[in-house]
Amino acid sequence: MMVARILAGSAAIALIAATIPANAAAAADGEQAREAAFDGMISSADQMAWLKDMSSAPNQVGSPHDKANAEMQLRLFRQWGWDAHIETFNVLYPTPISTTVEMIAPDRVTLGGQEPAVPGDTTSGNTAGAIPPYVAYQGDGDVTAPVVYVNYGMPEDYDALARRGISVKGKIVLARYGGGWRGLKPKLAQEHGAAGCLIYSDPADDGYATGDSYPAGGARPADGVQRGSVEDMTTYPGDPLTPGIGATADAKRLTRAQSKVILKIPALPISYADAAKIIAALKGPVVTGKQRGALGMAYHWGGTGAVTVHLAVKSDWSLKPVYDVIAMMKGSTFPDQWVIRGNHHDGWVFGAADPLTGQVALMDEAKALGALARQGWRPKRTIVYASWDGEEPGLLGSTEWAEEHADELKQKAVVYINTDNNGRGYLFAEASHDLQHFIENAARDVTDPQTGVSVFERNRARVLTAHYEDPGSVTPALAAAAKGGGDLLVGPLGSGSDYSAFLQHLGIASINLGFGGQDYAGGSYHSVYDSYYHVTHFDDPGLVYGAALSKVVGRLVMRAADADRVPARYSDFATTIARYVDEVNTLATDQRAKDRTLKQLAADGDFKLTSDPSDPTTAPEVKPVTPLIDTLALEDASDRLTRSAAAADAMLSDEDALPPAVQAKINADLAGIDQLLLDPDGLPGRPWYRNMIYAPGTLTGYGAKTLPGVREAIEQRRFDDARAYVAKTAAVLNAYADRLDAAVALAKGG
Amino acid sequence: MMVARILAGSAAIALIAATIPANAAAAADGEQAREAAFDGMISSADQMAWLKDMSSAPNQVGSPHDKANAEMQLRLFRQWGWDAHIETFNVLYPTPISTTVEMIAPDRVTLGGQEPAVPGDTTSGNTAGAIPPYVAYQGDGDVTAPVVYVNYGMPEDYDALARRGISVKGKIVLARYGGGWRGLKPKLAQEHGAAGCLIYSDPADDGYATGDSYPAGGARPADGVQRGSVEDMTTYPGDPLTPGIGATADAKRLTRAQSKVILKIPALPISYADAAKIIAALKGPVVTGKQRGALGMAYHWGGTGAVTVHLAVKSDWSLKPVYDVIAMMKGSTFPDQWVIRGNHHDGWVFGAADPLTGQVALMDEAKALGALARQGWRPKRTIVYASWDGEEPGLLGSTEWAEEHADELKQKAVVYINTDNNGRGYLFAEASHDLQHFIENAARDVTDPQTGVSVFERNRARVLTAHYEDPGSVTPALAAAAKGGGDLLVGPLGSGSDYSAFLQHLGIASINLGFGGQDYAGGSYHSVYDSYYHVTHFDDPGLVYGAALSKVVGRLVMRAADADRVPARYSDFATTIARYVDEVNTLATDQRAKDRTLKQLAADGDFKLTSDPSDPTTAPEVKPVTPLIDTLALEDASDRLTRSAAAADAMLSDEDALPPAVQAKINADLAGIDQLLLDPDGLPGRPWYRNMIYAPGTLTGYGAKTLPGVREAIEQRRFDDARAYVAKTAAVLNAYADRLDAAVALAKGG
Repeated sequence: MMVARILAGSAAIALIAATIPANAAAAADGEQAREAAFDGMISSADQMAWLKDMSSAPNQVGSPHDKANAEMQLRLFRQWGWDAHIETFNVLYPTPISTTVEMIAPDRVTLGGQEPAVPGDTTSGNTAGAIPPYVAYQGDGDVTAPVVYVNYGMPEDYDALARRGISVKGKIVLARYGGGWRGLKPKLAQEHGAAGCLIYSDPADDGYATGDSYPAGGARPADGVQRGSVEDMTTYPGDPLTPGIGATADAKRLTRAQSKVILKIPALPISYADAAKIIAALKGPVVTGKQRGALGMAYHWGGTGAVTVHLAVKSDWSLKPVYDVIAMMKGSTFPDQWVIRGNHHDGWVFGAADPLTGQVALMDEAKALGALARQGWRPKRTIVYASWDGEEPGLLGSTEWAEEHADELKQKAVVYINTDNNGRGYLFAEASHDLQHFIENAARDVTDPQTGVSVFERNRARVLTAHYEDPGSVTPALAAAAKGGGDLLVGPLGSGSDYSAFLQHLGIASINLGFGGQDYAGGSYHSVYDSYYHVTHFDDPGLVYGAALSKVVGRLVMRAADADRVPARYSDFATTIARYVDEVNTLATDQRAKDRTLKQLAADGDFKLTSDPSDPTTAPEVKPVTPLIDTLALEDASDRLTRSAAAADAMLSDEDALPPAVQAKINADLAGIDQLLLDPDGLPGRPWYRNMIYAPGTLTGYGAKTLPGVREAIEQRRFDDARAYVAKTAAVLNAYADRLDAAVALAKGG
Repeated sequence: MMVARILAGSAAIALIAATIPANAAAAADGEQAREAAFDGMISSADQMAWLKDMSSAPNQVGSPHDKANAEMQLRLFRQWGWDAHIETFNVLYPTPISTTVEMIAPDRVTLGGQEPAVPGDTTSGNTAGAIPPYVAYQGDGDVTAPVVYVNYGMPEDYDALARRGISVKGKIVLARYGGGWRGLKPKLAQEHGAAGCLIYSDPADDGYATGDSYPAGGARPADGVQRGSVEDMTTYPGDPLTPGIGATADAKRLTRAQSKVILKIPALPISYADAAKIIAALKGPVVTGKQRGALGMAYHWGGTGAVTVHLAVKSDWSLKPVYDVIAMMKGSTFPDQWVIRGNHHDGWVFGAADPLTGQVALMDEAKALGALARQGWRPKRTIVYASWDGEEPGLLGSTEWAEEHADELKQKAVVYINTDNNGRGYLFAEASHDLQHFIENAARDVTDPQTGVSVFERNRARVLTAHYEDPGSVTPALAAAAKGGGDLLVGPLGSGSDYSAFLQHLGIASINLGFGGQDYAGGSYHSVYDSYYHVTHFDDPGLVYGAALSKVVGRLVMRAADADRVPARYSDFATTIARYVDEVNTLATDQRAKDRTLKQLAADGDFKLTSDPSDPTTAPEVKPVTPLIDTLALEDASDRLTRSAAAADAMLSDEDALPPAVQAKINADLAGIDQLLLDPDGLPGRPWYRNMIYAPGTLTGYGAKTLPGVREAIEQRRFDDARAYVAKTAAVLNAYADRLDAAVALAKGG
């Protein structure tokens, strides 16, 4: 295996040389010419060759092929002229020793186990060394209990159960994937007293309701299972034993029992072929509407004892190594300003789409940048390319690296640019909003492979047609932006990939992007079927979007590295903050009104009057009415930011007229401005998350919560926290505005 | 069978006597006391006995049991003291000689045929004389063709097919029930060139997605089939050969070929067990989102030739008799003002829920009214109770009777009150809006059997809780009404039951009501399983809502018959009209904006840019932009109506102070005011429909279109019609206001 892989790698390198135009060096003096030369070196064929090789064997953390992939990349980076090394951390990463799921009643049926091979997908028959369906950081255990169906297992589902008098205490919950991050399902089940948790992929969400099942199409087949992490990443990601510090050999570690991010109850993922056997036997009230899935049967909430399941998991909880590949290209002018670009290389099984579609795009960029450097180009800033390990279990490699190098990164990092799995369709981007215009400009300059227009134009067409077909699907702000032809709005960053430590722990301005929306990567996600065959048939045939991704990201990297100053537009951030403040105020107002209504309806007995004899329900739980929360400080900070940002942007548009020393001082001061958005105490209950603007939601997981200290406190009815974080959030916005004001004052000779 | 039935009828009558309180006559001098006496005679037990008997054998038009049910009712009405007779019409009613559905490719599979017996439901095993799954007034034929899935078979589904380049020309379409009236499915298929039409009941709509399947629950089982009519009732209902006149023995008849309401292509309904076999084999693009159903498989649009079906129907097209039972109780003061109350007695098979739940409630009312009359009460107006035959095939009995007696009805009828199948839950009411307050007052005075509050209060609780749980599910006007404690808003009348000829052809103010929302009548609808067992287990156990219906309708009948004047409140009509005029203006504005957007997006190629390679689509068809349509005349008429109605209501609140002769003149003039809403030319393309305010939509079938001449013309882009019907609709509203103004003038001595 290893030898074959190295040969494949070498063959790929041979391909590269052929794709470098002979005159590229001469043409690469202007930015446009350099980018054209860069584009000319990007090669879908190279990406295909790497993808095939790197996904040829299981490559989860600790597997031989994962290590081999790291070493192969190290060799390639060096061949391409980068100063590269592998940095190793030792992390707590459990692997399954045994997993058991069996239905005990009404019939004894063995469930679970490895996914079967499918015709055409050669790796699917080659699962030696692959982990079976498993979720990392569940709590080992052995339980036998009745089953309760909990739909997506989100808070509103527990509300629906409570209104029906159904408790999950001591039961095993059966949750379907979707509606919120995987890890929240067993966490909320545990908080509600459940003894165990099964998670399955309902065909409504990524199966036959979305397309033909694999291998006829790309949708998840009956036997496909989604593995994943259930580490409580919303408390902190990375090694569970070393929060806030690098998991080096000699790091001071928590015990497993001390860690707050490991589950106490056993949990396993299963296929819908298995779940259907359980669901078909459940009794109790029928599940209707959006809470049912797409299996061809009635769904029941269960909890009656009609179905009993035995669930047992035993894991190897030893430390394992993760191998981060770090490659540097030193900057000529600002060597201590770093542009960092990363993707991860570990998968759950073969990991062809996730993460390798993004990883091979990153490699193609590194190849082309190396070639440009050999041809004489030298970036002004230092470029750092990182291939992370251990992302899948909990952003391990990136988090440990960021924690270990925190001091240096706070000094030097000006932007972190992340990708992960990539598919075909539309460019999506989430980012620190002062980088919005920077991203959109790159999207304007890259051609969409399917349509021949720019990636930006295609995204704009998507917004406009979606708004035509379903106006409610597009926010008014985005629709207005698209109609006006201005920048489309990038989303906020939550979690689920390697930017978390950079943005949310260190405050480094970050970008996450990729293509998608017309692929079936959801159908193979974290399963044995996430294979080269699946990717090249259903997700990005020919890896043409892999090439497009390299071109977009390559531009971002080169432009960020070569620009006179960090390419931010502060008004975009200010406009976005103003929108978020409005949202938070509306949230509080609406929640208060809804609380008042519920109190009245419950007092009047209106829910008793509308209970259906076929499905009797009680009133929703009445909670104290949301009080008035004074957000004046936040509104003031937002208004001030708007003025300061406008002044700063105006000053910067004429910055060339300033004396070079003043320019240098202004640019250096602004390079780290996003770090001012941190509060040293972090968010309530999760001090690792220090960014007061962007965080993953504790009840969304991957999904972002903006102004999280305030927004989540309102949502979760921690009203004292809400008031405290109005002040804290206003303070970081004022610090950001102070920095902008100082720059303007400096320009005026202040 | 017949003897047993008569005995059962007699037994029921014996029951009745026992339920009449001895002192009822003495107590019945005031309205409240009379209504209490009436309530005391209403008996769920009587209704159960009649229901069991009348649904004991197939009772479709032309069946022996249908005739026997008519004769039994005639006998009962007479026993109860009514002046009753049976009026017979001879109508074109086709019955199946042979029906064939078989899949030819990819496999030969015989489909269709009678539904099987289910345990517990005794009549389901007793289907001798029942018609097999069939749709009346389809076009006989014998076709073999590829199948195209068309979802609900509504215009937007054909748009979705067109965007995928899939034609139904020469094909057999497979449509699912729902989303629009049954008859529109084969009609639109035919208009698009299809050779045949299959209609099936998807489990998403009334099967396991909504509850447990029969007989475990009330939802439609895999083998259940919905029969029904596909007569083009939106052109005209009633006998296809005698539009506008009674189908008497010597009536001048059209030929079958001349009739505009009979389909040209063959059509049959099938079960989802059968449909699943076809759907599983279809090829082509995958159907996603709301256009797929709840079968446990991928849906494909088909049309590829992968599936070929043979569909053949041969019918007996002879004339058949329908038996309307008409019972009259002469009024003491205004014998020539008629309060008419009807329900039908024919079913598709056993018809227990549809129509007999409503029919036995009507009988219970007639029993109690008869008893009150025997005890000395005499209504001021004449009461006419009607038990219609042939409603199911096309409102035959009611339409022919209304057409035959049109002149007399225009002179005498002041209100028509209709019910049809009844279930448990909430009172729904659709009506001429000048009767809204009249209906809501009755709802305030009847107790809901499940909760013990008034029917009105329960409806109010439903609006309030629905608005709390999903604000978008309740219109702002209705939510405001419920919050304020005022009348809830009744809906407009479309079609689907026997009020059509009264309201839409003759202009007689009408009401249609019933209970529902917590039953499973949809699961047995028009199938063999619409049985006594199903009704008493899943729809209205104990027929307690049957009794509640009798109490509501009994109040409406007695109050309308005994009131000094027709119990209208004209401001309710004016308020409703103002809302409809707003809606029509918004429709035109929104459609114009959407047209402009589409034109631009299509010109810019935005749909080409967003086509998905897994499911390529073209742009929607670009149509000429909706022009500005001047609705000034309608707005003026609405404003004037608002003023006139307010003045009339104010005058009527003090009417008692006027001289009796003036009162009598005013009341007589206002009794027929709703007939002024007719235009003699009728609606575009369907002159039978003469009401300019209320009509069934040509593309909704049962669903109402208000201000239909204008609204549908805009929707269907007949903009010259829209302008012409602004004038016609304004004219009828002005005539209505003229009548109100004349009454006010009369009161002032003018």
